[in-house]
Amino acid sequence: MATMPYDAVRTPTMLLNPAVCRNNIRRMAEKARAHDLIFRPHFKTHQSRVVGRMFRDAGVERITVSSLRMAAYFADDGWKDITVAFPVNLREIDAINALAARVRLQLLVESADTVRRLCEGLRHDLDVYVKIDAGYGRTGIAHDNRTAIDAVCEEIARCPRLRLHGLLAHAGDSYHAATPEEVRNVFERTRAGLTAVAAALRPRHPELIVSVGDTPGCTLAEDFTGVDEIRPGNFVFYDVMQLELGACAAEDIAVVLAAPVVAVHPARGEFVIYGGGVHLSKEQHGRAGGETHFGRVVLLTDEGWSPPLPDTHIVRLSQEHGVVRSTPEIIDLLHPGALVGILPVHSCLAAACMRGYLMLDGSEADHCAGQPYTTQS
Amino acid sequence: MATMPYDAVRTPTMLLNPAVCRNNIRRMAEKARAHDLIFRPHFKTHQSRVVGRMFRDAGVERITVSSLRMAAYFADDGWKDITVAFPVNLREIDAINALAARVRLQLLVESADTVRRLCEGLRHDLDVYVKIDAGYGRTGIAHDNRTAIDAVCEEIARCPRLRLHGLLAHAGDSYHAATPEEVRNVFERTRAGLTAVAAALRPRHPELIVSVGDTPGCTLAEDFTGVDEIRPGNFVFYDVMQLELGACAAEDIAVVLAAPVVAVHPARGEFVIYGGGVHLSKEQHGRAGGETHFGRVVLLTDEGWSPPLPDTHIVRLSQEHGVVRSTPEIIDLLHPGALVGILPVHSCLAAACMRGYLMLDGSEADHCAGQPYTTQS
Repeated sequence: MATMPYDAVRTPTMLLNPAVCRNNIRRMAEKARAHDLIFRPHFKTHQSRVVGRMFRDAGVERITVSSLRMAAYFADDGWKDITVAFPVNLREIDAINALAARVRLQLLVESADTVRRLCEGLRHDLDVYVKIDAGYGRTGIAHDNRTAIDAVCEEIARCPRLRLHGLLAHAGDSYHAATPEEVRNVFERTRAGLTAVAAALRPRHPELIVSVGDTPGCTLAEDFTGVDEIRPGNFVFYDVMQLELGACAAEDIAVVLAAPVVAVHPARGEFVIYGGGVHLSKEQHGRAGGETHFGRVVLLTDEGWSPPLPDTHIVRLSQEHGVVRSTPEIIDLLHPGALVGILPVHSCLAAACMRGYLMLDGSEADHCAGQPYTTQS
Repeated sequence: MATMPYDAVRTPTMLLNPAVCRNNIRRMAEKARAHDLIFRPHFKTHQSRVVGRMFRDAGVERITVSSLRMAAYFADDGWKDITVAFPVNLREIDAINALAARVRLQLLVESADTVRRLCEGLRHDLDVYVKIDAGYGRTGIAHDNRTAIDAVCEEIARCPRLRLHGLLAHAGDSYHAATPEEVRNVFERTRAGLTAVAAALRPRHPELIVSVGDTPGCTLAEDFTGVDEIRPGNFVFYDVMQLELGACAAEDIAVVLAAPVVAVHPARGEFVIYGGGVHLSKEQHGRAGGETHFGRVVLLTDEGWSPPLPDTHIVRLSQEHGVVRSTPEIIDLLHPGALVGILPVHSCLAAACMRGYLMLDGSEADHCAGQPYTTQS
């Protein structure tokens, strides 16, 4: 049995179990293959070249990111086909040109005006997806607004440097679903909306692909008719939100925040960890019964970590503190200086807070926005 | 009129108005002087040596931080008297010793067991505060648990390297107060609890000081009888939470996130900014009427920024996107590529997300956990 690197942990540290990670990647890659889908995973969850290489080992060549900086970081690590799944930020035209010069780049557009202004600044060719709002209501052209969709497509056609690559939607509301059935309904609504638009456009744009994202949908859906590409991201780590939604099992969660215990209050039924909003983000999750929490708790073990402890949740979270409500039996095991593990509510945001990982084999993995894990406290 | 550096902004960027900052510092320093209080401001809000020097210019010599790393960063910039206002993390004994060797260091303890184990590892002298829970219920010994308080004090007395410096409480519940009157009540409860403990201990510990924190209390309270030291932090920037609580005016807020507009949806009454949970944190604030929001919006001007726009709030926040609900008049002013400013709900957390500032004079200020502002996206 390998020695776990817990003794090296001084301050809150994001632990990553690479075996779980690779398993999550393998399963989603197999699902994409089984449904004949392009697998373009979203790297905004992990933002690490080390995790990126696990995807490469699984045969992935195309990726999704959410910023140009992230795209540049992964381009530096040899990725050649990158979608920035965020509406074009016209203030970054220089970064767009620099990137388009060295990788196959796809951007998202949703208005004719943006296409026109993007085109004016471009010095290299690139592909665009038209962002469609299939009901989520964040960004994109409403799927039934065919006039606006046609106007964008015509503006793209007028620009010699742009090529229409596909239609793209993100069904972010699947994260707020309460059951797998609700997730499948959201996915189906998105699929139906997007494929209807694609069918209308295909006579003039036969090459157009349909791209959908979101981990709950890609994990739980089985009908991908008319879909060409999936872009899930969170599944590489999963988290408490996905667990409580039924999109993963507890043993599929690949990251925990190792957090030192700094105070134990048996009379209150609580203990306090070094681990707060700057480490986990303030993302909260509603439990059945109405109370919300900021993370579930595990014990670190010689193999990794335990299943989530019963009746044990972070109930309050300040900048650096987390207050955990727990049972007398568990509180009795703890003392200041001990370590516990926190399963994050939302692993993407917690990883973005921590900006670096300690792998269970003792190696470190960096994060494109940050510094090695050891400096975060 | 100076030229504002907005043209340099490509991605979400934390703007800092140094004149507002210096004014906030001056007022709090004056209040401390008027009440004959030691002013030991909490630097966890700004975490920047540049802002730290503004405090030094105002005569401040003693500071509070919330991690040993932050303490080391400010020690490197010449600060010599530093309180780490976080329960001792026994896993960081090496960092504690390294710091105690070079500055006058105060730590927080709240159990005899922790004091004993801290003492075993110490190689340098240091001072401790006993953390008292005066009703907030996060960390500290309950103010009416005199047995536990006495036990900690006796354990401190047994350790040759430790000296009892004072009693410390943080009334974090003042942040959740709805009115200035409630803030004053929380402050008064804390003051009364702490000074009663101090009175009981003073016969044996005549040097003991009483230290209280929290920006709302220190801003709004007028009766500091029995208090020796204040440690507010947030007031250097203030934020929407403080504004809506009545602890500051809109023109006292010293930071805004400059955020590019990436999509405009007049039919929905919304626009979308590049600026999400990784930039602002997911801290939310309840408005009168029950709806919560993630930030208020200003227009950037030649002097800095406008007052908060009416009926304009971030109503949804994902990893990188913010969806702003606004009025037709305001939406009509905007287009993709424009910049707006976001007044953060909680400036401490937003600053910890952004880790760097662009000052209105065009210079940059670093953050102890991060990199210059330009690399954050």
